[in-house]
Amino acid sequence: MLTIRSHSHDYSVEEHLSLRKALESVAGSKGMVFLIDEAVLWNHSEAFEGLVPEEGRIVIKASEEQKSFERLTPIFLELLARGLKRDGTLVVIGGGVLQDIGCFIATVLFRGIRWELIPTTLLAQADSCIGSKSSINIGSFKNQIGTFYPPHRVMLVGEVLKSLPWDEIRSGLGEVIKLQLIAGESGFNELMSDLEGVNLEGDWAVISKWVGRSMAVKKPYIEEDEYDRGIRNILNYGHTFGHAYESATKYAIPHGIAVLLGILTATYLSVRLGLVPATHYQELKKQLISWCHPYQDALSNADREAIFKAIRYDKKNTGDAVNCIVTRGAGHMEKMKVDFLQDLVPAVEEFMDKELAAQSV
Amino acid sequence: MLTIRSHSHDYSVEEHLSLRKALESVAGSKGMVFLIDEAVLWNHSEAFEGLVPEEGRIVIKASEEQKSFERLTPIFLELLARGLKRDGTLVVIGGGVLQDIGCFIATVLFRGIRWELIPTTLLAQADSCIGSKSSINIGSFKNQIGTFYPPHRVMLVGEVLKSLPWDEIRSGLGEVIKLQLIAGESGFNELMSDLEGVNLEGDWAVISKWVGRSMAVKKPYIEEDEYDRGIRNILNYGHTFGHAYESATKYAIPHGIAVLLGILTATYLSVRLGLVPATHYQELKKQLISWCHPYQDALSNADREAIFKAIRYDKKNTGDAVNCIVTRGAGHMEKMKVDFLQDLVPAVEEFMDKELAAQSV
Repeated sequence: MLTIRSHSHDYSVEEHLSLRKALESVAGSKGMVFLIDEAVLWNHSEAFEGLVPEEGRIVIKASEEQKSFERLTPIFLELLARGLKRDGTLVVIGGGVLQDIGCFIATVLFRGIRWELIPTTLLAQADSCIGSKSSINIGSFKNQIGTFYPPHRVMLVGEVLKSLPWDEIRSGLGEVIKLQLIAGESGFNELMSDLEGVNLEGDWAVISKWVGRSMAVKKPYIEEDEYDRGIRNILNYGHTFGHAYESATKYAIPHGIAVLLGILTATYLSVRLGLVPATHYQELKKQLISWCHPYQDALSNADREAIFKAIRYDKKNTGDAVNCIVTRGAGHMEKMKVDFLQDLVPAVEEFMDKELAAQSV
Repeated sequence: MLTIRSHSHDYSVEEHLSLRKALESVAGSKGMVFLIDEAVLWNHSEAFEGLVPEEGRIVIKASEEQKSFERLTPIFLELLARGLKRDGTLVVIGGGVLQDIGCFIATVLFRGIRWELIPTTLLAQADSCIGSKSSINIGSFKNQIGTFYPPHRVMLVGEVLKSLPWDEIRSGLGEVIKLQLIAGESGFNELMSDLEGVNLEGDWAVISKWVGRSMAVKKPYIEEDEYDRGIRNILNYGHTFGHAYESATKYAIPHGIAVLLGILTATYLSVRLGLVPATHYQELKKQLISWCHPYQDALSNADREAIFKAIRYDKKNTGDAVNCIVTRGAGHMEKMKVDFLQDLVPAVEEFMDKELAAQSV
């Protein structure tokens, strides 16, 4: 068990052998409502039977569209109608969308209630379940609204990952890879060697090992800088570009894979800025590009104007230059203001022209 | 100048000689958007001229209906359209509704931005401007959604109170009186004697004195218990009943006056529970009832079922009993679980039958 410090309240991350066992450890107290991803309930209905009463379940079809005030309103009203009180608990079971919704609701309902989280995607287990963030969309603006409010308890269950499609697993691995690159060369090399040798669709011990290792990397950053104003920015390595690639392709590229492509872009930019030798980029590309396949093609065909517009209007950018996490090699990322027109645009153009095209053949 | 400690950030409360001077101290920096109460702009348009550019103003007609996700959405979109960034500042100028909206937006936009507040009602100046709370309505549920996030700076301007209707001033005095009752007998007596002798519509030195004295009483409670989980509950003296009186009369009774009627009810209940002598209630009623006139009649005619339903479903009530702040005399309030059917309902019924009716003749 891991304990994470937070400005709101410390919280624990526990491992459970099955979803049933995790549910057994939460269910039964009064004043509890469950917010459940429809697909999870569908795949694991037997785990809920007899433990989570029908009237305590609110079932959500996870989609980006759910993350809006319009769609949140009926959920709030449903929670109030079911008598959830200030001393009640919201139990959230699902991936990133459910976590965003559940976290936002738990932050603002009665100005904050207890919530517990069973993350059900690799992305959520290895990365987003710790760190307190929620993200809500407004109009056409993605993730511009949100809060910092961690769950009071996180329960990890390896079992639920088995029903995920392969792209979902790869998407999670994108963040796992990012965290090990931030941690340094030895962790990254160990990860890449683990990933090479095994059948990931069956070898859950490997996945579970790297979920734990991911949290160990992330923990000190979020504890020292929960509100993401300083050192935690480093965790955005690959994200300035990754987010833009996702939105410019209308989310055709899974998040973690967009992050991998973003990491390659940030590294390419770092080479052009003279921060890291070209060999570092070449080596990284050799190791990562196969994990991106075939999404580098989708990126290659994306509307470049849309990409640059998204980078320009990222909520992290406050002036004329763009805040990027650049790299001087594994374990040596730093934040840098990069001139948009002079340095960033040409680097991305060249990356897309030369590096993606070369892979598409 | 007063400094208030908060979990989010410490903040200052400054006095300014005029609205113009307050605006001069904030305006001019880049990335600033002003959220302005329409009535304030109407009454003080000259103070804004040449200082706050038209394109930096969002003007809001203050009403309870504004405090909903539906109405907040266009404001968020307007702020984004005007290029407000993560390092920008939202300046909020208005009373309780503007403060609720502004605080909520500032909490969740980009997961929290800087905001500054010029409160323009006595209620906001003497009470709500410190203490971090925002309240948003959802469906027919009032104030069930909200956040704790204080402004980064509060600017008090006595001048703006002069354009307020007399009921607004009295409403503010309701909270001023409550705070002095909580502080103890000597402060309360001094206040009542000040209020007796002066023409409140002209004598701003008296108002200004009691704005300052109100903050001095509130400050230790919100600093020790910002999230309202313990000692700060005391500040809800009169509010369990006051909120119910407001909602059952469809907000025909101004907030602070409903609180005064709520204080009388809580004291009446305290007498029935044997906590305080009947003479304390009689004395208090003699001093407070004239400040309520003629709203005790509105309460006397209110739908009692609606009152009891509102008390029952108050967000502070978590079980079968109702949390009330009861009194053992000025300066001696405490939180107590009161049996709803056995103790609370009969006390309120008797208070309404005997005490309000006697005044209505």
